[in-house]
Amino acid sequence: MLLEEFLSNAAIKAWALSSIVVALKTLATGMLVSSIRIRKNVFSSPEDYELQKLEPQTATDDQVERARRVHLNDLEAGLPFVLVGLIYALTQPSTLGLWICFAGFPIGRILHLVAYMKGLMPHRTAVWSIGFGITVWMAVTSAISILT
Amino acid sequence: MLLEEFLSNAAIKAWALSSIVVALKTLATGMLVSSIRIRKNVFSSPEDYELQKLEPQTATDDQVERARRVHLNDLEAGLPFVLVGLIYALTQPSTLGLWICFAGFPIGRILHLVAYMKGLMPHRTAVWSIGFGITVWMAVTSAISILT
Amino acid sequence: MLLEEFLSNAAIKAWALSSIVVALKTLATGMLVSSIRIRKNVFSSPEDYELQKLEPQTATDDQVERARRVHLNDLEAGLPFVLVGLIYALTQPSTLGLWICFAGFPIGRILHLVAYMKGLMPHRTAVWSIGFGITVWMAVTSAISILT
Repeated sequence: MLLEEFLSNAAIKAWALSSIVVALKTLATGMLVSSIRIRKNVFSSPEDYELQKLEPQTATDDQVERARRVHLNDLEAGLPFVLVGLIYALTQPSTLGLWICFAGFPIGRILHLVAYMKGLMPHRTAVWSIGFGITVWMAVTSAISILT
Repeated sequence: MLLEEFLSNAAIKAWALSSIVVALKTLATGMLVSSIRIRKNVFSSPEDYELQKLEPQTATDDQVERARRVHLNDLEAGLPFVLVGLIYALTQPSTLGLWICFAGFPIGRILHLVAYMKGLMPHRTAVWSIGFGITVWMAVTSAISILT
Repeated sequence: MLLEEFLSNAAIKAWALSSIVVALKTLATGMLVSSIRIRKNVFSSPEDYELQKLEPQTATDDQVERARRVHLNDLEAGLPFVLVGLIYALTQPSTLGLWICFAGFPIGRILHLVAYMKGLMPHRTAVWSIGFGITVWMAVTSAISILT
């Protein structure tokens, strides 16, 4: 049957597992934002303060803002990756290519989270570049493969 | 023919309809941001004020900021959902699972919009959790299904 | 073989190429944010200033904020487009429909970047509407096609 054949393909399987990790990592970063908010009592809406029986305030917190920037960056990097990754998987790349791209991206993103939260530069840029490079490389390779 | 077979599958059909609703809901939240901006005369760029023949200002508005947070949350929650949802649909889940996930998520997101705009807590967290729980559950189920 | 058949389909091919352009455009907008930050010495984190041997500051820059709004809008518009575009492609639309949607959206988004960075209104709204209209039209057409 068609759909079973789809997910039994090694490239689609690698894309699917990698994408699930990237999706769960994005959701985990969102939970990190919430957990720092609760620990530091810094919220985005007045009703959140009221729920904690606190006076509403407008101050922001450095760690909350860092985690929020990581979360936004997860979307900025993740949307192109999962999309281009699916197209790349459909071009049936080599096993080496699959491993580098679909293991490399999630690892790069987890290291990016650690580097950003700890304020490590230029390490943050270095690990961010892993994901960026992988996505651009897959995009160019896939476009060539489709056009030729 | 291949592609017709693809969209004639019940699980893919459910994913596609649910994803279209989630996409339209995200676009509608963006329109809500714009409509509140126009009604309250609070814009993001100086040229927007000039177009309305108003003096540019930097003030923000509570309802605009609320709608913007909902819009960003639509992306934070929606990207993992549509991605993991496609993989989940490919694993050919039960009809009950399809209904709970693909009807539950859009309903949860619409209730989240209402709760956030009205400033209702803890209702906002409760309805947000519906979508979060569904996505995590689909991710774990799909990963197990692919790996076994 | 299944997957080769998938990418050899004209509609899927058009979606894939269009999506790759949209993904690369989103990544390029992110690079634009970074390049303006470096040129103007305006960063988001203290460690970024330290790397440039500068005193950390909290000022923002108009061009940086403009490029950031374009980048966020790329996600707000791009996620619904690539998702709904895939479903639309699966419904096997006409060649004319493919051209209008899959060439029109990336062109609209590139014009939106130019209009936003130059502060041109109402041109920005006009070119933004191209992408919005295409996505809504594809969503409605696809939903009808699936339901009938």
